[in-house]
Amino acid sequence: MTEPNEPTDSTARTESNPSAGQFTVTPAAVEGEIDYEKLLERFGADPLTDGQIARFPDHPLLRRRTFYAGRDVDRYLEAAAAGDPHAIVTGRGPSGPMHLGHVLPLYLAKRFQRVTGATVYLPLSDDEKFLAKDQSFDAIGEHTRDNLRDILAVGFDPDRTQIVVDTADADVIYPIAVRLAKHLTPATVDAVYGDQDTVGLQFYPAVQATHLLLPQLVAGRQPTLVPIAVDQDPHVRVCRDVAAREALPVEKPGALLGRFLPSLEGPGKMSSSGDAPSIELTADPETVAETIRTHAYTGGRATLADHRENGGDPTVDVPFQYLRYFFEPDDAALERIAADYRSGELLSGELKEIAIDRITEFLSEHQHRRGELGSLEAELEPFRLPERERRRALERAGVPSPLER
Amino acid sequence: MTEPNEPTDSTARTESNPSAGQFTVTPAAVEGEIDYEKLLERFGADPLTDGQIARFPDHPLLRRRTFYAGRDVDRYLEAAAAGDPHAIVTGRGPSGPMHLGHVLPLYLAKRFQRVTGATVYLPLSDDEKFLAKDQSFDAIGEHTRDNLRDILAVGFDPDRTQIVVDTADADVIYPIAVRLAKHLTPATVDAVYGDQDTVGLQFYPAVQATHLLLPQLVAGRQPTLVPIAVDQDPHVRVCRDVAAREALPVEKPGALLGRFLPSLEGPGKMSSSGDAPSIELTADPETVAETIRTHAYTGGRATLADHRENGGDPTVDVPFQYLRYFFEPDDAALERIAADYRSGELLSGELKEIAIDRITEFLSEHQHRRGELGSLEAELEPFRLPERERRRALERAGVPSPLER
Repeated sequence: MTEPNEPTDSTARTESNPSAGQFTVTPAAVEGEIDYEKLLERFGADPLTDGQIARFPDHPLLRRRTFYAGRDVDRYLEAAAAGDPHAIVTGRGPSGPMHLGHVLPLYLAKRFQRVTGATVYLPLSDDEKFLAKDQSFDAIGEHTRDNLRDILAVGFDPDRTQIVVDTADADVIYPIAVRLAKHLTPATVDAVYGDQDTVGLQFYPAVQATHLLLPQLVAGRQPTLVPIAVDQDPHVRVCRDVAAREALPVEKPGALLGRFLPSLEGPGKMSSSGDAPSIELTADPETVAETIRTHAYTGGRATLADHRENGGDPTVDVPFQYLRYFFEPDDAALERIAADYRSGELLSGELKEIAIDRITEFLSEHQHRRGELGSLEAELEPFRLPERERRRALERAGVPSPLER
Repeated sequence: MTEPNEPTDSTARTESNPSAGQFTVTPAAVEGEIDYEKLLERFGADPLTDGQIARFPDHPLLRRRTFYAGRDVDRYLEAAAAGDPHAIVTGRGPSGPMHLGHVLPLYLAKRFQRVTGATVYLPLSDDEKFLAKDQSFDAIGEHTRDNLRDILAVGFDPDRTQIVVDTADADVIYPIAVRLAKHLTPATVDAVYGDQDTVGLQFYPAVQATHLLLPQLVAGRQPTLVPIAVDQDPHVRVCRDVAAREALPVEKPGALLGRFLPSLEGPGKMSSSGDAPSIELTADPETVAETIRTHAYTGGRATLADHRENGGDPTVDVPFQYLRYFFEPDDAALERIAADYRSGELLSGELKEIAIDRITEFLSEHQHRRGELGSLEAELEPFRLPERERRRALERAGVPSPLER
């Protein structure tokens, strides 16, 4: 929640995070205000340098350090610069409709694909969502199909993009997961993921490791980057450990670690499971406007006079943060908005209207592309792994078909 | 290890099991001498009645009570008698060549299929063997293909028999296993299977439950019987619990529980993993003769004079037990051999030669059928689940394809 273009520093963080120091971040729970520097220390990941950011395709999510840290980022950047194979893996757990916050990393991945030719892998973990949520596979399947339409609407290049759905692609996912599970102990899973209620969830980390290694198993050794909220970093570390321990022709996947996008009601993680209002990708303009007007947490003052006199605080203002993350790519324009807000010239309601305009415009284009899609089966077909590549992935993973020799 | 046609009674058992009372039987370990009655009490299964045995297709393994207990046997027998659908599931863990002891339950299943039209499901758990053994998937794959030739040589009816291999049929096995794993807790698995070293093995009971429910998921609700050594009964109980708890259109699978076949070196479980010599299905007549002559434990006396005077003990004599289990189906002939052995008229060496003749004859026929097989892929094809039945099984399990609606 720092100012645009302003590097993370402890002053800004302390201002907006008065209770920093008491926080819990595991893949299952994010509680309290978050000290993003401390998280890196705890996880042992590296902050992105200015040089690294300059070498990535330009994007507000990186330039403004929403993605602010990583693992093995240089190997990825070198391959991208040299035109060598390199891949991005960014998944989706289909337990509900997709929200704004879910789709932003997909647009980042699309940008990387456009600029450097990255292969993008998009795994949908319907197995995990079935196991973790109180939903039937019928319900999860509905969400899967709905989410796939949003993923397809992003506009990935079918020649460089693979979509896998765990239950629908179990022929390739499960044997590789078994291969990776051979030395994955319950103790490791409990330490990283917490105690699991079912043996299904205990096994799932092997499936997730499969997702992260799949680009290399299908197409050969190559740097792979996983853009992921920082709380998901332990998942990447489990996969890195597995990749290092097992004799497989792969590099350890790298990570691009991001801050949490705020919920409309203020700092914290945008969640589709809680009661917090959020903006679905299928929302119409009236709903977007109504939701932001009614629910968005602002950095404005309590009274008009106070705001005009002392100005607002863009660092905690959710509409401003939306602009900063994604919806106002022009740095000068964003800085102007921040200055006007701080001076009191721009009111919270006016700032909300700017965000509403930008988000509505973005959603209108996304929804237009989504509306143009034909049948899901036909649209998805070019993104599914062909039989030849499935066999190759199984062979590279050391799980050749037992029946075809 | 009781006499032929003699019902299990505690005298006979105490004779041959002097240390009965101190024994361990779990799916992973069989130690000590076994009190088969106590096992039933412990597991809560029922001894087969004379009436039940009379209603099964006639077979020495049942008539002589090698299979001596069961669960829900009556439901199976009623369906078989009425000509209603009924199924047998009997699996194989392909971690090495198949031995005599492995194939006898398959011939029993074939008999049931011939007489009452039972559908037979034959799952091969290459995933579990990879996880549990220090072997690569390449090695497990070799054993899988080799074992499949032996399974095909048994001569099942392709119209009523399905063979599944976990990694090769993961498209149907894994999603159903996830469905069954939703409420399968680590505590249950630990209690039944013991502490597992890896999350792969922790998940495997859900795969095994899938095997046992597969006939009903493919072809609709029907009594299913699992002929299994009594130590494997907990696996069936896990599946029965899962089937009862989850709202699935299946009956709890029943079990037909068997005594352990003795290893050549004496009472205990025939094992392919230990160092005990054993008779592989591909053994030539010289090897069979040499192995039995050299290694088979006998109930003969220490000296010829002693044997002629006091006679041998067929209840502990392994060559006699082989005849009793399977290789001498004629009760009168078997009783004559037992009487001659007890009287001292028949020597241990002569009894061995009788067993060698019968086993060699059996293997010669088995090997002949195995030799007649064409390519594995072509021979296996009629035994694999067609796409339509895979979809139906997934739908019945409540895991319809998320991509095809």
